Amino acid sequence: MGTRKEHDFIGELEISDEVYYGVQTFRALENFHMSGRKLQDYPYFVKAFAQVKKAAALANKEVGVLDADKADAIAKACDRLIAGEFLDQFVVDMIQGGAGTSTNMNTNEVITNIALESMGHKKGEYQYLHPNDHTNLGQSTNDTYPSSIKVATYAKLSDLLKAMENLKAELEVKAKEYKDIIKMGRTELEDAVPTTLGNTFNAFASYIKSDIEKITAARDSMTYLNLGATAIGTGINCHPDYKFVVEKKLKEITGVEFKPAEDFIAATQDTADFVHVSGALKTAAVRLSKIANDLRLMNSGPRCGLAEISLPAMQPGSSIMPGKVNPVICEAVGEACYEVIGNDVTIMLCSERGEFELNAFEPGIAYGLFNSIVLLENAMKTLAEKAVKGLKANPENCKKLVLNSIGIVTAFNPVLGYEKSASIAKEALETGKAVGDICLERGYLPKEKIDEILTPENMLNPHMTEKRKA
Amino acid sequence: MGTRKEHDFIGELEISDEVYYGVQTFRALENFHMSGRKLQDYPYFVKAFAQVKKAAALANKEVGVLDADKADAIAKACDRLIAGEFLDQFVVDMIQGGAGTSTNMNTNEVITNIALESMGHKKGEYQYLHPNDHTNLGQSTNDTYPSSIKVATYAKLSDLLKAMENLKAELEVKAKEYKDIIKMGRTELEDAVPTTLGNTFNAFASYIKSDIEKITAARDSMTYLNLGATAIGTGINCHPDYKFVVEKKLKEITGVEFKPAEDFIAATQDTADFVHVSGALKTAAVRLSKIANDLRLMNSGPRCGLAEISLPAMQPGSSIMPGKVNPVICEAVGEACYEVIGNDVTIMLCSERGEFELNAFEPGIAYGLFNSIVLLENAMKTLAEKAVKGLKANPENCKKLVLNSIGIVTAFNPVLGYEKSASIAKEALETGKAVGDICLERGYLPKEKIDEILTPENMLNPHMTEKRKA
Amino acid sequence: MGTRKEHDFIGELEISDEVYYGVQTFRALENFHMSGRKLQDYPYFVKAFAQVKKAAALANKEVGVLDADKADAIAKACDRLIAGEFLDQFVVDMIQGGAGTSTNMNTNEVITNIALESMGHKKGEYQYLHPNDHTNLGQSTNDTYPSSIKVATYAKLSDLLKAMENLKAELEVKAKEYKDIIKMGRTELEDAVPTTLGNTFNAFASYIKSDIEKITAARDSMTYLNLGATAIGTGINCHPDYKFVVEKKLKEITGVEFKPAEDFIAATQDTADFVHVSGALKTAAVRLSKIANDLRLMNSGPRCGLAEISLPAMQPGSSIMPGKVNPVICEAVGEACYEVIGNDVTIMLCSERGEFELNAFEPGIAYGLFNSIVLLENAMKTLAEKAVKGLKANPENCKKLVLNSIGIVTAFNPVLGYEKSASIAKEALETGKAVGDICLERGYLPKEKIDEILTPENMLNPHMTEKRKA
Amino acid sequence: MGTRKEHDFIGELEISDEVYYGVQTFRALENFHMSGRKLQDYPYFVKAFAQVKKAAALANKEVGVLDADKADAIAKACDRLIAGEFLDQFVVDMIQGGAGTSTNMNTNEVITNIALESMGHKKGEYQYLHPNDHTNLGQSTNDTYPSSIKVATYAKLSDLLKAMENLKAELEVKAKEYKDIIKMGRTELEDAVPTTLGNTFNAFASYIKSDIEKITAARDSMTYLNLGATAIGTGINCHPDYKFVVEKKLKEITGVEFKPAEDFIAATQDTADFVHVSGALKTAAVRLSKIANDLRLMNSGPRCGLAEISLPAMQPGSSIMPGKVNPVICEAVGEACYEVIGNDVTIMLCSERGEFELNAFEPGIAYGLFNSIVLLENAMKTLAEKAVKGLKANPENCKKLVLNSIGIVTAFNPVLGYEKSASIAKEALETGKAVGDICLERGYLPKEKIDEILTPENMLNPHMTEKRKA
Repeated sequence: MGTRKEHDFIGELEISDEVYYGVQTFRALENFHMSGRKLQDYPYFVKAFAQVKKAAALANKEVGVLDADKADAIAKACDRLIAGEFLDQFVVDMIQGGAGTSTNMNTNEVITNIALESMGHKKGEYQYLHPNDHTNLGQSTNDTYPSSIKVATYAKLSDLLKAMENLKAELEVKAKEYKDIIKMGRTELEDAVPTTLGNTFNAFASYIKSDIEKITAARDSMTYLNLGATAIGTGINCHPDYKFVVEKKLKEITGVEFKPAEDFIAATQDTADFVHVSGALKTAAVRLSKIANDLRLMNSGPRCGLAEISLPAMQPGSSIMPGKVNPVICEAVGEACYEVIGNDVTIMLCSERGEFELNAFEPGIAYGLFNSIVLLENAMKTLAEKAVKGLKANPENCKKLVLNSIGIVTAFNPVLGYEKSASIAKEALETGKAVGDICLERGYLPKEKIDEILTPENMLNPHMTEKRKA
Repeated sequence: MGTRKEHDFIGELEISDEVYYGVQTFRALENFHMSGRKLQDYPYFVKAFAQVKKAAALANKEVGVLDADKADAIAKACDRLIAGEFLDQFVVDMIQGGAGTSTNMNTNEVITNIALESMGHKKGEYQYLHPNDHTNLGQSTNDTYPSSIKVATYAKLSDLLKAMENLKAELEVKAKEYKDIIKMGRTELEDAVPTTLGNTFNAFASYIKSDIEKITAARDSMTYLNLGATAIGTGINCHPDYKFVVEKKLKEITGVEFKPAEDFIAATQDTADFVHVSGALKTAAVRLSKIANDLRLMNSGPRCGLAEISLPAMQPGSSIMPGKVNPVICEAVGEACYEVIGNDVTIMLCSERGEFELNAFEPGIAYGLFNSIVLLENAMKTLAEKAVKGLKANPENCKKLVLNSIGIVTAFNPVLGYEKSASIAKEALETGKAVGDICLERGYLPKEKIDEILTPENMLNPHMTEKRKA
Repeated sequence: MGTRKEHDFIGELEISDEVYYGVQTFRALENFHMSGRKLQDYPYFVKAFAQVKKAAALANKEVGVLDADKADAIAKACDRLIAGEFLDQFVVDMIQGGAGTSTNMNTNEVITNIALESMGHKKGEYQYLHPNDHTNLGQSTNDTYPSSIKVATYAKLSDLLKAMENLKAELEVKAKEYKDIIKMGRTELEDAVPTTLGNTFNAFASYIKSDIEKITAARDSMTYLNLGATAIGTGINCHPDYKFVVEKKLKEITGVEFKPAEDFIAATQDTADFVHVSGALKTAAVRLSKIANDLRLMNSGPRCGLAEISLPAMQPGSSIMPGKVNPVICEAVGEACYEVIGNDVTIMLCSERGEFELNAFEPGIAYGLFNSIVLLENAMKTLAEKAVKGLKANPENCKKLVLNSIGIVTAFNPVLGYEKSASIAKEALETGKAVGDICLERGYLPKEKIDEILTPENMLNPHMTEKRKA
Repeated sequence: MGTRKEHDFIGELEISDEVYYGVQTFRALENFHMSGRKLQDYPYFVKAFAQVKKAAALANKEVGVLDADKADAIAKACDRLIAGEFLDQFVVDMIQGGAGTSTNMNTNEVITNIALESMGHKKGEYQYLHPNDHTNLGQSTNDTYPSSIKVATYAKLSDLLKAMENLKAELEVKAKEYKDIIKMGRTELEDAVPTTLGNTFNAFASYIKSDIEKITAARDSMTYLNLGATAIGTGINCHPDYKFVVEKKLKEITGVEFKPAEDFIAATQDTADFVHVSGALKTAAVRLSKIANDLRLMNSGPRCGLAEISLPAMQPGSSIMPGKVNPVICEAVGEACYEVIGNDVTIMLCSERGEFELNAFEPGIAYGLFNSIVLLENAMKTLAEKAVKGLKANPENCKKLVLNSIGIVTAFNPVLGYEKSASIAKEALETGKAVGDICLERGYLPKEKIDEILTPENMLNPHMTEKRKA
């Protein structure tokens, strides 16, 4: 294959005819060696950008500023990108300067050259279709780039939410299955009062439920786009109707209710909604990590720990200790969560650093945000499928711990008062005796009353329904 | 004044009759020397705790487990705390172990001793009214402490929201006042295309509006309480109707629609809603800091900077440079924002570290959260009153910069295309000529067309309404 | 008492003769309502500032630009501040704009008015001694403020190091005391191979030792000062010899080897050495928190946890659960550590935000840094005195867990190989049998060999000294 | 190619003979879908692990526990890995549970199968050479994994230091070149007093110098290894001489002075030295970001900003604004820095979360740490080569700003005193007059004296050498 010449105001470059991208992508390839992770490693972002470009072309056609044949060629090229073709043409490093200009131009160039070929021209014959004048018509990096991040984020958050629903469902299965397994409740790592293993898993499911609500709400903030804002939000060089039409088109293409932001100036410079989304992800990471860590603690042992549950054995646990099984899934989930939390700081920094009419650090935001969403999605899936689904309760051990505990003395509280109960607890701790026996020895209560108080059902919910005689 | 003796299971202590707190508060005083900041430094937290205690007493009376005289004495004591009395009796360090037990007991002891006196007894005569058996009846630190944090957070977020509304209003005043002042828009710190100073302040107002919405939503998550959960959420030692009645009472006392959380087990152990609130504060801090920094940049100078606005002179700016005026308010606002962002990490860590049925690090959460809210409230107020309100635009300088800029070449784009416009820009940069003159010299357009394109109104919104002949 | 009039370029103020501070401090009092924490709450900072001011006065005298009587009056006033007098005159909020100008001027004004009185003049008679022209002679906020932060930081880090040495010593006492208590080693919360409780405490002591080295190294970076840099490092308005003399004087006053930074331009604008110090504090917080958390885990129980140690009972653990004792000291220590880690983010943000010749956010750095050092010092002290010193080992429980474990199968590895050992482990886990019994049943080894391998001494360090026959 | 069967205690797997890894790697492949980044994406880590494994084999041979033929076959296999062969066999996700067991076993399996082939056996014939019994002899994941991270970190930090030396050299070139270009110094973004552009670049070089020192010191902490610690530091199943011999071998292989850590128990569980290294990276990121941001500010314009320097034009700056050039390199550098700062939080979290004798989250630490070092190295290189090297000063503009400034009034301070100078500044600001003219008009000083004071040389360093008559 031959080569073609392309130029920008820096000069002329000879470009292999094999590639669909052009001179500006080449500049970016030379300029940005940072993360080593390219646009093609984020296919949903490329897809989202193509969806935005298609919407833009169709909108420009509809408002009458772009010829139908050009618009249709662009739209068709976008469809191929949306279908996953030409992914290898998206070569720019995710971490880049220029507020995403290189991503926008990589996309514009690839679309234009695909379209040129479909129109019977050669790559690079921009006199027939120009990356800036036509494919980018009425657009700017400053509206298409953040909008594409939002379209991609919306899509990936939806995937994440599915994974969360699945994890929640698995936790609820366990909650139901274990609803009658009495186990010791612990506060501050110290024996407290009895609960059930079902309660534990039900609480975990509640955690996920709460985060589903928060992430769903945060996802909504991704539906306000600034398409039509162009350079700084004033809409310079854009048809006045474009901003309404393009959102309609994008809705048709994606099925999502995108709409124009209220204040285009603000929407073009402000990236804090990404901080908001990342905050929701971080909150979910905090809760998920808590679940993973509680599972590790309940699984600790097998002989020198709590051993209330057994996580499924996924792999040999040690290269030196035979037979060792480790909670490897929970650990990997934890690490993913800590990545998400670290990314939250990165995203905040990129956002906080913006000046005036644009945030130059948006590519850093996109990088951190996509990494966070995918990690959290993987973590949710992995925990559900490889830890929760296959874990087993150890009901005998759970029950033994409760019956042997001192914490059940709390159940005497409404009848004996705090001080007498505390004194029973103290004796139990010093002597190793059972609290019921001490209560009986001291003659505080008759045996039947003691037994009634200490039945599991009553211990689980021994409500006070009468005044104690103080 | 004399002394009284109080004991707990660690031993007996001689306590001055001057103080209303008792033995458990004394333990905490000895144990916790950390932040040096005491409960009394957070009066809204003491108030909230008293509101919760009052609601609990009235609820216990209503469900029939506490004598009316005791309940009323407790409630009356709470009223005095709510009114701000006895604040100096709240002496425990905010950073404390025990998941807030020392705060709860400090409160129980002070209320009990106030109530005892009102009942005609002496402090410490707990046989008539006991801090644990009566004042804490049907309660636990584990439900009253997080609930009180939520009540206090709700109240302080409401104060913050008022400060935000005020800042938003001040920004809108400026937006209106400056709506016709044309100024240069900048992207990536480089000259872009014209905007107005009104647009700038309007965008700032939009920032605050967005955060008002987010913080209002986050505030809602503070209305779900676990009162009645007692130790771990099973409601042990609590009347079954209590949890409904106590929320009703609390609503009457505070005027806020508090309600029982759906899952009391989860609600007792999960602190991630505080992370969520802190996330909203952090997002607002990011936006506020961006406003403060943009103001600093626009104010830079007076001769060697942008000098588009003049912040009010608040104080001499230097101990060595006479006449220097610094943007001290914006700087202090920035520092407050960075504190809020740092606290977000602390709160996350405290929350992530919780185990099993309770989070032991809740006092760390309360400390960080209250500090963040108050700092942000102060920052919002300070920026509004001491920077925004008194700032002045420098319209001549703003306009001069625009007219002298190259960025206005963008306005030729729809007529000349990207490449010709770029070549004009290049010549302007190299020669120092005005872009309009180059356009005329090259014969691209007649003078009238050039003038029309470059009028401020058109530059501010020069929409493309016809197809360009490529 | 009467009033006096003072003015700055904003205008004139009537000031009560009771106060030693002047007009510029009043401006700051009006301007900065942020943290609510004043300079007087940081007495070591006030002291350090006075030390710097004294050194400056004496240096100016020595280089011949300040009259001896003025210099001596200033120095004497500084001595009184150093001794702790007039602390209540330091009223400005720690969070302030102006890069510390208000702190410097608060100090200049108080010193000047004390000196004026000692010279027989009245407060405010600045014609005899001027806060700017004499007390601040050859100085700027931009050199005295960061230098004073460094002097104070050095002093407080020294206090912290003492607290760390003490904690290390307490841990070593326990390491020695418990050197023969065999206990289970755990990796990934799962039973691994035996260790001793002595090893555990020795490792904790190693942690602290490592951090003592790091913090000592970081403290060194605080000895490079920019006194004489004045406004931006060029030394404008400062005698050329001053910078050497002032460091010599400061060394005499403080006993610390302070020295001029190599590059005064860099030293005046760069605050990253504070980030470096905060990084060392954060690292120490990470290790301290790990110790506190391991103590909590070993202390967990008393019946349903590991119960390998018993932390001293410091206070009743619950308002509802009688007899409960919680690891409250470890928890408070953890919260302090999380504060330090959050402050690290704040300090980084303040530092990263600096522009050009000065960092405007230094007051935010000072606030975070001082808070971190004091919290960490308190945490080290508290853990040593209230948790480590009084804790008790539970040697029987420790040993029982080891002997009952499967992990000891690792000791068979050098003799039997990984796969046979793994198969013994598997059977032990499934059947509940002891690993030694299985080994004997299967005829792998004679009883004496098994017993030899499983003696505690051999299990603790069963080195391979011969080739296994594969 | 055929297949072979391998088993672990979970069961048997059929493995393609094409691959050199075995059953445990397959488990990991199934278990860990997290980051999508594999070991092979971190070739220096694979190399470091092979260096450690080679050292271990040679040490086992020397101490007499491993046959020479086996040891040599292992060593030869390691040499091929060190040379970069078989990189595609390292397939496990970097984020993994098991504290790195999967990485260790992936390495053990690949080495073993390469060695088996070289010994004339087939892959999987572990009776001749076993991944655990021979390749991992006297080792554990818990000593080889952290040690390999340290070996790799040491190597990559050395690369980073080279990049920093290069950037420093480029900055020094500019410092020398621009030493006579007078420019305005700015504090708090406000005009202060004159400096030179040379000073500015010299300060930047000082920044890098300071970080070179800090990172070099932090790199030293990576030379203390725990090889021979095996599972938990007790050295179980390891020859007592091994730990000394293995370090000697590793030194021969790598050329770096690795040495045994003092306390193997601590060294096996403690990961805070990685936090320390990350802290040094973060500090360097803060300084680098400050440089990048100052460059952006000085480059701002070209007409509506400071325009004191011109960064090299690397690519067209906008898809819509013709001729726009953005500081894209500085922006990408900033994003890289913010990634490093975010990773610092992740690394801290992973480290803080360790329990007892091992930190389960080490893979998260390795992931964050390697990413940070490489990003920072790329950022240093990129800034040096693509921004600093090609930038140009705009000396006329720099000078014009100084001469037009009010800040130069500071130079009158030693002669006129603070208050008179302040009043000149005030008039200049209000009237637009030059400060020298006002001074003359007011008759404060004769023209010659004014001119002398305002010569650039004197303004740059106008030292006070005599007492002013107050």
